Amino acid sequence: MGEEFIQTVLFQLFMIIVLVEMAKIICNRIKVPTVIGEILVGIIIANTFLLGFLRIEEDPEVFEVFKELGVIFLLFTVGLETPFSAIRKVGGTAFAVAVLGVIVPFIAGYGLMVGLGYPQLEAMFIGAAMVATSVGITARVIKDMNLMHTLESRVIIGAAVIDDILGMIVLAIVVGIASGGSLDILQVGVVSIEAVLFVLAIIFIGSFLMPKVLKKNDERKEKKAKAQMVCTAERKRRGIGPLPLALIICFALSSISSILGLAAIIGAFLAGMAFAEFKDRWPCEQKIEPISEFLTPFFFVFVGVEVVLSEFSSVIVLALVITGLAVITKFAGCGMGARKLGGKSASIIGVGMVPRGEVGLIVAAIGLNMAIVEAGLYNAVVFMSLATTLVAPPLLTYTFRRKLGKKCEIVPPDADI
Amino acid sequence: MGEEFIQTVLFQLFMIIVLVEMAKIICNRIKVPTVIGEILVGIIIANTFLLGFLRIEEDPEVFEVFKELGVIFLLFTVGLETPFSAIRKVGGTAFAVAVLGVIVPFIAGYGLMVGLGYPQLEAMFIGAAMVATSVGITARVIKDMNLMHTLESRVIIGAAVIDDILGMIVLAIVVGIASGGSLDILQVGVVSIEAVLFVLAIIFIGSFLMPKVLKKNDERKEKKAKAQMVCTAERKRRGIGPLPLALIICFALSSISSILGLAAIIGAFLAGMAFAEFKDRWPCEQKIEPISEFLTPFFFVFVGVEVVLSEFSSVIVLALVITGLAVITKFAGCGMGARKLGGKSASIIGVGMVPRGEVGLIVAAIGLNMAIVEAGLYNAVVFMSLATTLVAPPLLTYTFRRKLGKKCEIVPPDADI
Repeated sequence: MGEEFIQTVLFQLFMIIVLVEMAKIICNRIKVPTVIGEILVGIIIANTFLLGFLRIEEDPEVFEVFKELGVIFLLFTVGLETPFSAIRKVGGTAFAVAVLGVIVPFIAGYGLMVGLGYPQLEAMFIGAAMVATSVGITARVIKDMNLMHTLESRVIIGAAVIDDILGMIVLAIVVGIASGGSLDILQVGVVSIEAVLFVLAIIFIGSFLMPKVLKKNDERKEKKAKAQMVCTAERKRRGIGPLPLALIICFALSSISSILGLAAIIGAFLAGMAFAEFKDRWPCEQKIEPISEFLTPFFFVFVGVEVVLSEFSSVIVLALVITGLAVITKFAGCGMGARKLGGKSASIIGVGMVPRGEVGLIVAAIGLNMAIVEAGLYNAVVFMSLATTLVAPPLLTYTFRRKLGKKCEIVPPDADI
Repeated sequence: MGEEFIQTVLFQLFMIIVLVEMAKIICNRIKVPTVIGEILVGIIIANTFLLGFLRIEEDPEVFEVFKELGVIFLLFTVGLETPFSAIRKVGGTAFAVAVLGVIVPFIAGYGLMVGLGYPQLEAMFIGAAMVATSVGITARVIKDMNLMHTLESRVIIGAAVIDDILGMIVLAIVVGIASGGSLDILQVGVVSIEAVLFVLAIIFIGSFLMPKVLKKNDERKEKKAKAQMVCTAERKRRGIGPLPLALIICFALSSISSILGLAAIIGAFLAGMAFAEFKDRWPCEQKIEPISEFLTPFFFVFVGVEVVLSEFSSVIVLALVITGLAVITKFAGCGMGARKLGGKSASIIGVGMVPRGEVGLIVAAIGLNMAIVEAGLYNAVVFMSLATTLVAPPLLTYTFRRKLGKKCEIVPPDADI
């Protein structure tokens, strides 16, 4: 009954966790964010004898699920620490950061490729791959530094969420042009409206409607309970626990988000954000945190596993140019959007938006599948996604330290236990 | 990049958790252990439109992993609450319970089938399928009742572990006879010795050697730290956290156990038991518990999913006879082994050992795969495994209540939050 299959998976889990923990201990010792260690573990696995030894490519589905659940739980916990009221305060700035952070890299990437003589469509794909910030990477670095509460972090997370939606719209437009041969304005319009409505609806329901309904419901139940002499503890016991409720809402919104053609992580983040308003009623943080701690490393390890170093030699120069452009344009665009907050804060935000991570990889893979992006260029985009991911954490640490002084030491997630 | 696959999995997770929570709320209301609700959810999924709607059969690998991780984390948490010192106290009784609980059902099952005119080999397989108690089911019921600390619970868990090992030996013997055509004494001997040595080695290392080594190491480090003026908090930060350490040990022992040809859950249980000795040093309980709460329901749901009700009609009488025999012989054998503890305790233990669950199913599947057990008989064995599983929790609740009085109310796992 698949005993051998299970045996392999258990051994894989064991080995990956051991390697990740070794990398984390080294990272903590040299004071580097642990996420870099996790990605490097993936790169090492993919490019050494470990790939064959661990037989990871034999059952890709299982690890695809682990990877996706890892980033979903990460974004949910990030959302949990981002009540909507906090996003609202930085909403205007976050929006400016996101919009400029999408437009500038797209135009630059598109312009570069057209200038180098690549076809229009391929150039558009490269531009699109340079657009979307990977909120996962930045969120993890900020969490490891215990800086979720700062203004800059909230702007970054808020902007990354808006940016993800804009990135998906750009991707939808590019894919629409590529598959139809022409720009289908109707399809683009539908996707854009869907995305915006979904986010606004969740925020409205989670952060405005639900608290009011629950409050009224409580008052009504309180009266009824007094009349029937049922104690609160007894009522609580009959209801749903905080962890299952959190899981249900998280998976529901992730599914809906994915079905709407947005990234599933957007739903997970919104679910966390909605839950942040009910911390007193359903204290799920302590229960979600360990699940996230178990699964999240798989996301970063498998971001690293996608890198095949030997394939980069032929496109190394182009890859470096694209990477440089991706860093500079995102930094400049987002920094410009946040200029109101002062130079030091603007540079933190600019740096925080640099990592492209999985979103760039997804765009590149779609382009490759549609035979629009050639293999060499695909490698260059993969390199860009990973290089921006690797470069951002130390820059973020540096800019935060420059602003806050030595106070913000990197604290491993377990240290407070 | 498999976006549709992930979308399906997220939707499946959402639906399963919703159904499980609905079942749990109903179970709590009618004061039945929630594990029954979880298995029934699986049976309902497998036998209604939900099977097609949820498309669970399209990616069985993912749910096979979820199911296995669910039972592994369950057994690890059970082990965490069973320090070896507690097992040692009940060791003699547990051994007697396990041995008699293996011999009596095997002889009865084998005798029944030979009496009905079935071939020797098929009769042996049915006997083997009636042997191994599913510690998972009983452990869950006891945990839900908050009765892990009682003498009876410890005897049941200890006996179930020994019984699992004996069950594997019986299975190895039967498979050996079936595949070789004759009884290969050498192979049987190797498997038996391996199993016993593995368990004794882990207990020795985890419960005797490690505590001593760590104590000495601590004293040495303490001296060194005093000399170097490094505070304990700083040292702690550099080391490994309790959750990763627990995961590493759990997966390592599960892998080894599985590689040795024992069930992976035996390793998970032993890992938990070893960790129980280090609760002060690595307090992993609070972090393992939520992961277990997330994953364990998948085990029970997928035990239920294996049941196809429509296939039972042809073997219903035989299935009922086998089930009755399985309940009576296990109850009698184990009760006899525990007779020293008095009638009420012996009947709790006898009832607690009744569920066969996944172990019976694995034996039946192997017999079917080897074309020794015919399809009709396979269905009967599946029915027996599930019927014993469904019948045991209410009987266990009843016998515990009879001994302890109304005190032991069933408390849902979330109630203490």
